[in-house]
Amino acid sequence: MKSLRSRLGKEWLFCDGGTGTSLQALGLAGGELPERWNQTHPDRIRALHEDYLKAGCDIINTNTFGLNTLKFPGEVESLTAAAVHLAQEAKERTGREDAYIALDIGPTGKLLKPMGDLDFEEAVALFAETIRAGAQAGADLVLIETMSDSYESKAAVLAAKENCSLPVLITNIYNENGKLMTGGTPETVVAMLEGLGVDAVGVNCGFGPQEMIPIVKRLTACASVPVIVNPNAGLPKQIKGRTVYDLGAEDFAQTMVDIAKLGVQVVGGCCGTTPDYIKRARELVLKHVPFRPIEPKHRAVICSGSQLAEIGPKPLLIGERINPTGKKRLKQALREHDLNYILQQGLAQEEAGADVLDVNIGLPELDEPAMMAEVTTALQSVTTLPLQLDSSDPEALERGMRLYNGKPMINSVNGKAESMAAVFPLIKKYGGVCVGLALDENGIPDSADGRIAIAKKIYAKAAEYGIAPEDIVIDGLAMTVSSDSRSALITLETIRRVRDELQGHSILGVSNISFGLPQRQIINAHFLTLAMQDGLSCAIMNPNNAEMMKSVRAYMALMDLDENCLQYIQAYSEQETAPPVQTKTAYTL
Amino acid sequence: MKSLRSRLGKEWLFCDGGTGTSLQALGLAGGELPERWNQTHPDRIRALHEDYLKAGCDIINTNTFGLNTLKFPGEVESLTAAAVHLAQEAKERTGREDAYIALDIGPTGKLLKPMGDLDFEEAVALFAETIRAGAQAGADLVLIETMSDSYESKAAVLAAKENCSLPVLITNIYNENGKLMTGGTPETVVAMLEGLGVDAVGVNCGFGPQEMIPIVKRLTACASVPVIVNPNAGLPKQIKGRTVYDLGAEDFAQTMVDIAKLGVQVVGGCCGTTPDYIKRARELVLKHVPFRPIEPKHRAVICSGSQLAEIGPKPLLIGERINPTGKKRLKQALREHDLNYILQQGLAQEEAGADVLDVNIGLPELDEPAMMAEVTTALQSVTTLPLQLDSSDPEALERGMRLYNGKPMINSVNGKAESMAAVFPLIKKYGGVCVGLALDENGIPDSADGRIAIAKKIYAKAAEYGIAPEDIVIDGLAMTVSSDSRSALITLETIRRVRDELQGHSILGVSNISFGLPQRQIINAHFLTLAMQDGLSCAIMNPNNAEMMKSVRAYMALMDLDENCLQYIQAYSEQETAPPVQTKTAYTL
Ligand SMILES: [Zn+2]
Ligand SMILES: [Zn+2]
Ligand SMILES: [Zn+2]
Repeated sequence: MKSLRSRLGKEWLFCDGGTGTSLQALGLAGGELPERWNQTHPDRIRALHEDYLKAGCDIINTNTFGLNTLKFPGEVESLTAAAVHLAQEAKERTGREDAYIALDIGPTGKLLKPMGDLDFEEAVALFAETIRAGAQAGADLVLIETMSDSYESKAAVLAAKENCSLPVLITNIYNENGKLMTGGTPETVVAMLEGLGVDAVGVNCGFGPQEMIPIVKRLTACASVPVIVNPNAGLPKQIKGRTVYDLGAEDFAQTMVDIAKLGVQVVGGCCGTTPDYIKRARELVLKHVPFRPIEPKHRAVICSGSQLAEIGPKPLLIGERINPTGKKRLKQALREHDLNYILQQGLAQEEAGADVLDVNIGLPELDEPAMMAEVTTALQSVTTLPLQLDSSDPEALERGMRLYNGKPMINSVNGKAESMAAVFPLIKKYGGVCVGLALDENGIPDSADGRIAIAKKIYAKAAEYGIAPEDIVIDGLAMTVSSDSRSALITLETIRRVRDELQGHSILGVSNISFGLPQRQIINAHFLTLAMQDGLSCAIMNPNNAEMMKSVRAYMALMDLDENCLQYIQAYSEQETAPPVQTKTAYTL
Repeated sequence: MKSLRSRLGKEWLFCDGGTGTSLQALGLAGGELPERWNQTHPDRIRALHEDYLKAGCDIINTNTFGLNTLKFPGEVESLTAAAVHLAQEAKERTGREDAYIALDIGPTGKLLKPMGDLDFEEAVALFAETIRAGAQAGADLVLIETMSDSYESKAAVLAAKENCSLPVLITNIYNENGKLMTGGTPETVVAMLEGLGVDAVGVNCGFGPQEMIPIVKRLTACASVPVIVNPNAGLPKQIKGRTVYDLGAEDFAQTMVDIAKLGVQVVGGCCGTTPDYIKRARELVLKHVPFRPIEPKHRAVICSGSQLAEIGPKPLLIGERINPTGKKRLKQALREHDLNYILQQGLAQEEAGADVLDVNIGLPELDEPAMMAEVTTALQSVTTLPLQLDSSDPEALERGMRLYNGKPMINSVNGKAESMAAVFPLIKKYGGVCVGLALDENGIPDSADGRIAIAKKIYAKAAEYGIAPEDIVIDGLAMTVSSDSRSALITLETIRRVRDELQGHSILGVSNISFGLPQRQIINAHFLTLAMQDGLSCAIMNPNNAEMMKSVRAYMALMDLDENCLQYIQAYSEQETAPPVQTKTAYTL
C-alpha cells in the first residue's frame, strides 16, 4: 500500500460522503448518538463503509465525528477502536486495501473561551484522547472536519500533531459571507493551518457545491497544500420534520466537475450525499478534469483569528507601545497586573493605524511565560489585529504561540546557534513569521556585508528545520546615528540587499535610529520614509506619533498605495495649515 | 608657426616676467605711465621683449597693462598698435617667430558697481577698445592679468570674446587668505572663467612663488583648462624709497620647479622678475619636471562672486520664494518696484538654509529683461548665495546672465528644438548650469522612459554646442499625485535613471507633487526625502517651511552628510518635544 502522503496532491483522491445523514436514513433516531452504533450496529456502519469503497472512495471516514470524552466518558478508546476496525473490515471485504482510513474528528460541541467556557488546553486534551485511540487502532490519517472556529481547529490540529505522526487533513465550515462562525476567512484559516503543518485544507458541509465555489476559489488562490472540497447534497430543507437535501446525485456530480476544475485535489461529499453521489462525481471528474497539483504560493502572511496581514505589498505598521522598555507607566501596569491599561495601549494603536501589535511584557520580576499567555489571550479578546509576540525567552514565546489564535509574528531569533536551536522548533511546530536579527555570536556587524551574511545563515538554518524563507523577516538593526554617522547607511543598505539579493522581507525597530538626538520623531519619520523606499516590509514604530504617521500616509499616497490619496485626505483634510513661518529678523536694506 | 591653442596644455610654455618693474629699472619715473614708452622709448620696450625672447619665453606681454581710454583718451588704438609692433619687431630680431604676442590687459584701475562707480558695461567697453586694437595690430592672444575682482575679470573676458577670436588667458591676484580682493576663491573664479570659455586660468603677482603654492594647489585641483603661474620675485620690500624683491633668480627658479610639479602647464614671472629669472626657471623646469596635461575635472558647480555651490555631494536647496506664481504679495512688490521686499525674501531664505536662490520675476505687465537685470544685480549686492535665473524669456535670461557676477544656474531649457536653439548659445557664451526640463514638442511623457529619452536628447544637443554634461541638470518634473497616482513613481524613477543610466544630475520643483491636496507640506517633505534618496541633486523648495527643513536636516543627519549631526542638533535641540498624542477615546474594557 502506497502511503497517503506519497499520493496526496499528486493524483485525484476521493473522500466519502455523508455519514450522519446516511445513518439517519438507516434508522438512527433523533436523540441517538451515531458513534454508539459502532457497538450496537457494527454491520450497518461497516456496510456504509463498504458502499463508499465500492463507489471508488480513496478515503473513508470512521464513525467518530462526535466521539469525545464529554459525550462518551470512559468509552472513547473502545468506541474509537471499534470504529477503526469496522473500516478495516470493510476494506478487507471489498478488496480495497489501497483505501485510507480517516479518523474523523468533528468539533467538541462546546465553545472555547473567551466565547464559551472550554479552555484551549482542555479542547486539545479532548481531541488528543480520541486521536491517540484512533492512531493506536490503525487509522491512516486524521481528518478534522466541520470546524466553524479557527481556535478549535488549532486545538484539534495540535492534538493530532502531538499524539500521532499521521497525515492531518482539515476542512472548515464557512457561512454565506465566506467566514467561519468565529470570523475567520479562507485566507486566515489557511495561513494558520499551514503554519501548524497540516497536509491538506478545505471546506465541507454548510452548502451545496454551487454555493461553495467562491470559497473554493479563495482556498485554491491562497493554499500551498492540497485543497479538499466535501459539499453537502445541496441546501437542506425541512420536509415533514425530516431534513432533505435538494440536489440529486447527477446534479451534484456535474457541479463537482466545475469545482474540480478550480484546482482542488481531493473531492468528496458531506451531509445528504451517499455512495451514489460520490461514485458519479468520481466518474465525471476522472473523465473530464485533468489533475493539477496545487502551486506553492510563497505568501508571507500573519493573521489573527479573523484578520490577515500580508508582508510585502505595503509596509506593515507594527505598534511598539506594548513594550516596557523606557515606559514607566507600562512597567507599573505590568507589575500591578493592570490588564486594562495594556489593552488600552493596544486599542489606541489600532485606532491610530497599526496593522499589527507588538507584545513585549518582559520585566525581570515577572513570570514572563504566564504574562505572555495572559496578555496575548486578553488582547485577542478585544482586537482582531494580528500580534507580534516579542520576547527573548523561548518559553514565553512558546506559551504565547500555543495559545495564539492565528499565525503570529515572532520577535525574534538571531544568528546565534543557541537562539536558532531554541526558536526554530517553535516556528516549525506552531507556525509564525519569525524576525531574524542580523547579529550573532560576534555581535552586530558594522557593515551590510556582515549583516547579509548572518541573514543568509538564518535563512539556511531555517530551511533545515523546514521553515520557508517567506516565514523569515530580517531585522536590519537600526542603531543610532548619533554615535555612528554611517549607521543609517549600513541599515538601509542591509534592507535593500535583503530585498534585492535575498528576495526577502525586512523589519526595523525604527526609533532606535535617533537615540540621543533631540526631536527624535523628525529623524525617525524621515528614516522610516527612506527605509520604506528601500524596501522595508515591517516597521516597528509608534502609530500614535503624528510625525511617524505623516511619513506613512505621505509614502502611501506618493507610492500609489493609497487609492486617490483617500486615506491621506481623510487624515489631513480637516487640519488647519500651519501658519507661515516668520523670519527671525526684519531686514532693512 | 603652430597656433597657441595647438600647444597650450600639451607642452611646457613660458611667459615672460616683470614689465613694469623692468621699466622702472630702465628709468621709468614714479608718475610716468609705462605705456607712453611705446612711443617715447620704443627701443627700450623692444629690447626688453628681445631679452625675454632670448631667455626662452614662448609668450611675451605687450606693454599695454594699463592701456585704456580712461588713461589715454584718443590714444588707445595707436599706443596698442605700437606696443604690438614692438613685440613683433623683437620676434623678428631674435628669430623667435615661434613665440606668441600676448595683448596684456590689466585692471581698469576703477572699482565696478556696487563697490565703485564703474558700470559693468562701461568696463566691458573699456576693455573692448584695447582688445580690438590689439587684435587688429596682430596680437596672438589676450592675457588678462592681475585681476583682483571677479566681476572685472568677467567684463574683460566678455570684451575679449566679443571682439576677437584670439585665445584668452587670465591670471588673478589672490591675497594671503586665498581670496580675491572682492572675495572670490580659486574655485569660484575658475568656475566662472571656465564658464566664460577662457583658454587658461591662473595666478600672478601678489606673492613670491613659495607663498603661491596653496593657491596653485587649489587651482590645479579645480581647473579643467591649463593653469598659469606667474609669481613675483618674492615679497616686495621698501629699501631707500625703492621697491625691491627678496628672491634671486636661482631661488626663484628652484621654487618654480616645485610649482611646476604641482601640475601647472604655463609658468613665468611678474613684478621683480627679469629675463634671468625666467631663463633659469625654464632651464630647471624643462630639465626636472615632466610635463603633465591638466585633467578635466567634470565639476558640476555654480557660484556667485565669492561662494561656490557644488552639485552632487549633497542635495542643493534652491529657495523658491522669489517667484510670483501664486504669491500676491510678491506680485505687488514687482509691480510697485519694491526691491526691498524682494531682497528680504532672498535674505530670509538664506537665513533659513537655502544654498541657492531662484529668481523668477516674470509678470506679463513687466519689462522682464530689465527687471531680471535689476533684481539679479540687487540680490548680488546683499547676498553671496549663487542664483538660479529663472525665466521662459531668453532675453531676460541673457540680461541676467550677462550682468551676473559668477556662474549661475539657468532655469530652463527643454527638449523643444526652439528652446534649445535659444538657450544653449547663452550657456555656451556666459557659462552656467542649465536646467533641462524633460518635456518637448509632444508634451510631458507619462513614463520615465519618455522623460529619459528627452534628457538624452538635451544632453546630445548641448554637446553639439560644446556644453559639458555636468552643466546640465535634468528636471524630472514633479506632477501632482492627486490627479495621477503613479506620478511620483514616474518622477522618482526618472531621477534615479538620470543618476544611474545617464550619470547626470537632477532637479525638481518639489511642491508641485502635492497640488490639490490638504497639508501639502507633509507630502512635499516626504517626497523630498524620497527624491533625495533616489539621487535628487537640487531641490527647488521653500526653506522657510518647517516640514521641508525637517526632511533636509533629517536626511543629512541620516546619510552621513551632517558631521556628528551637528546641524540637526543645532536646529532642534532647543525645541520642546511635542506633547504625547492623546487618543481620542477612553476605552473601558
Ligand atoms: Zn455536512
Ligand atoms: Zn606683479
Ligand atoms: Zn605683471
